[in-house]
Amino acid sequence: MAELNENFIKLPGSYLFSTVAKKVSAYQEAHPQADLIRLGIGDVTKPIVPVVIEALHKAVDEMGHAETFRGYAPDLGYPFLREAIAAEYTRRGCEVSSDEIFVSDGAKSDSANIQEIFAPDSRIAVCDPVYPVYVDSNVMAGRTGDYDAADGTWSRVIYMPCTAENGFVPELPKETPDLIYLCFPNNPTGTTITKEQLQQWVDYANRVGAVILYDAAYEAYITEEGLPHSIYECEGARSCAIELKSFSKKAGFTGLRLGYTVVPKEIVRGGASANALWARRHGTKYNGTPYIIQRAGEAVLTPEGDREVMEQVRYYLRNARTIRDGLTAAGYTVYGGVNSPYVWLKTPDHMSSWDFFDLLLSEKNIVGTPGSGFGPHGEGYFRLTGFGTYENTERAISRMQKL
Amino acid sequence: MAELNENFIKLPGSYLFSTVAKKVSAYQEAHPQADLIRLGIGDVTKPIVPVVIEALHKAVDEMGHAETFRGYAPDLGYPFLREAIAAEYTRRGCEVSSDEIFVSDGAKSDSANIQEIFAPDSRIAVCDPVYPVYVDSNVMAGRTGDYDAADGTWSRVIYMPCTAENGFVPELPKETPDLIYLCFPNNPTGTTITKEQLQQWVDYANRVGAVILYDAAYEAYITEEGLPHSIYECEGARSCAIELKSFSKKAGFTGLRLGYTVVPKEIVRGGASANALWARRHGTKYNGTPYIIQRAGEAVLTPEGDREVMEQVRYYLRNARTIRDGLTAAGYTVYGGVNSPYVWLKTPDHMSSWDFFDLLLSEKNIVGTPGSGFGPHGEGYFRLTGFGTYENTERAISRMQKL
Repeated sequence: MAELNENFIKLPGSYLFSTVAKKVSAYQEAHPQADLIRLGIGDVTKPIVPVVIEALHKAVDEMGHAETFRGYAPDLGYPFLREAIAAEYTRRGCEVSSDEIFVSDGAKSDSANIQEIFAPDSRIAVCDPVYPVYVDSNVMAGRTGDYDAADGTWSRVIYMPCTAENGFVPELPKETPDLIYLCFPNNPTGTTITKEQLQQWVDYANRVGAVILYDAAYEAYITEEGLPHSIYECEGARSCAIELKSFSKKAGFTGLRLGYTVVPKEIVRGGASANALWARRHGTKYNGTPYIIQRAGEAVLTPEGDREVMEQVRYYLRNARTIRDGLTAAGYTVYGGVNSPYVWLKTPDHMSSWDFFDLLLSEKNIVGTPGSGFGPHGEGYFRLTGFGTYENTERAISRMQKL
Repeated sequence: MAELNENFIKLPGSYLFSTVAKKVSAYQEAHPQADLIRLGIGDVTKPIVPVVIEALHKAVDEMGHAETFRGYAPDLGYPFLREAIAAEYTRRGCEVSSDEIFVSDGAKSDSANIQEIFAPDSRIAVCDPVYPVYVDSNVMAGRTGDYDAADGTWSRVIYMPCTAENGFVPELPKETPDLIYLCFPNNPTGTTITKEQLQQWVDYANRVGAVILYDAAYEAYITEEGLPHSIYECEGARSCAIELKSFSKKAGFTGLRLGYTVVPKEIVRGGASANALWARRHGTKYNGTPYIIQRAGEAVLTPEGDREVMEQVRYYLRNARTIRDGLTAAGYTVYGGVNSPYVWLKTPDHMSSWDFFDLLLSEKNIVGTPGSGFGPHGEGYFRLTGFGTYENTERAISRMQKL
């Protein structure tokens, strides 16, 4: 008798953004005239830049002719893209070779799948609040123990609170984890970490033998000097850190799907190599990223592509700054929005995150994301994103100032 | 201390097609002048058809303008594609609704990932020989027990031999499995199953409470009447069968990446729904198939798209028939190649599959796939595919006739 996976059934409710989407649909159906402004899900609004569109058309044409048609892509990515990515690391002074780069359909898939190559009983540590995928994918893998509905925590997960009090940078955990998920610039808080702070994490991981899963999906949004763009800027990171990167937020690829993961060959445990295991997972459970999408990624990494996409990044950063400054002026307590497209605000009058979500949706027709959806320590916070249009962002802030 | 997943480490050697690719590269490097003909991996050679190329260009253009730009796709697929797929089922007289269809980046990913929604201790039954992904993905999930290097089997897997003696259709297993992987038209044997035979499997699965994972990736290659194009042609399949489909072999999408899985709502175990769990997996571990690729899939399902892609299917079928007839005339014992792009032949003089692989590569510069790579009962067989060009297929057969 086939049985379904109890670990999946343990997952409470539905994925955060699906819940948000359902609430918004229901509101919209009931109020078809409402002029909704969406600053909730971290989806971009700017179109794909011209250099990338040109690369896509060219690759599509190649697919239409027998001489240039491409069938199965190499599991791990085309050499032209892996080498272009490795060259980016070299330019930053980081030691990463092309055979340590694994091209994928995006950082969400990678951050959900990467846990598979580690022991089933690994203990994970996550920031709280946190991008839900890190925890949920481990719940599905049966690693997280029991769920406490009262406070929304799992018994085997080590939570590292990130609040205003510690500047949203977690302290080293008291219990020793096997896997540590870090994301800087951070989703959802929009804050980041200094190189010295990150070096402490790398030293800690090497000391206790942990592996850091470093999500750098928002790296392109760093504007201040001295902040690490990659964990490999830290000494010793190659023996303890896997880095996840995305084209989604840098180049607007949320609908094109392209990301990559760096697995240094120095991560070896019990004689086995994490790099080899991740390669085996790609070879068995994945069949390569579409050729035309990989060509699009290559175009992003040209000087002209970089110029075009960074113009969009600066546009979104201006939005984030507009939210930050506008809400600060209106008396809100606000974080992030400087090295990140995300602004993290305290809900007014100690409202709960979901109450504030409902209020903003119904009174101001603004969609944000409730902080508690990212973990218990997100309660009382709320996330807005700079990914809307500038006009809508200004209108939304003006509405919120009148709340 | 982070440890790697022992289940991954248990996997012997590398993925079959990676091994083949490495052997071929090594040969090519040593013999740069060799005129290799590749009839090994099941990759297509015909370019993407004009109707699909047009749809791709149109979708790329949409991505380049703010008004028509698309960000994150719905996790489960765009309604336009899910509905077009459901309509195909309706035309065949099968009851499948659009919310039972999950669009993905291909049948390889789906066939590797689908096991995740079932209990970790589920027992699987597979045909032998078999597409390696079914077994390997279950090895990685820790379900398969211990490996016996002597005969290449796993202690907890129920193997169902498919040989010339049973016409390559497995008998009902003596031990009762929870999950049953079936693939018809079959990869690698190129043979298929009648509707009556498939109905017996559906009845059996319903009787014992098993779930059939039915891989119909080669359905478009069925030429004979009365053969099932979908398992949902069988009565009772909705309560026991999940169907996996692909655009790769029908429309040459091996490099575009598009497939889908049908999970009927009737598959309920212990009060939980397989449909809901698969949706949750998509929502957590996947982020949707690229918009432009989904538009390409939609174009395949138009009458004009169907006409263009089926012309390619017939071309590959002619190749398969050429292999079948040519080798039969030369005295080989040959199966498949009528309702399938694959031809399955007995190695001459009781050679081992890998010995024959090496002989064909070095003496005739032909790349095939050794049958033993698909499982113990594939030993002594060899797979050739009709996916080459007609000219190369003819040349290859003429070379083999002289062996």
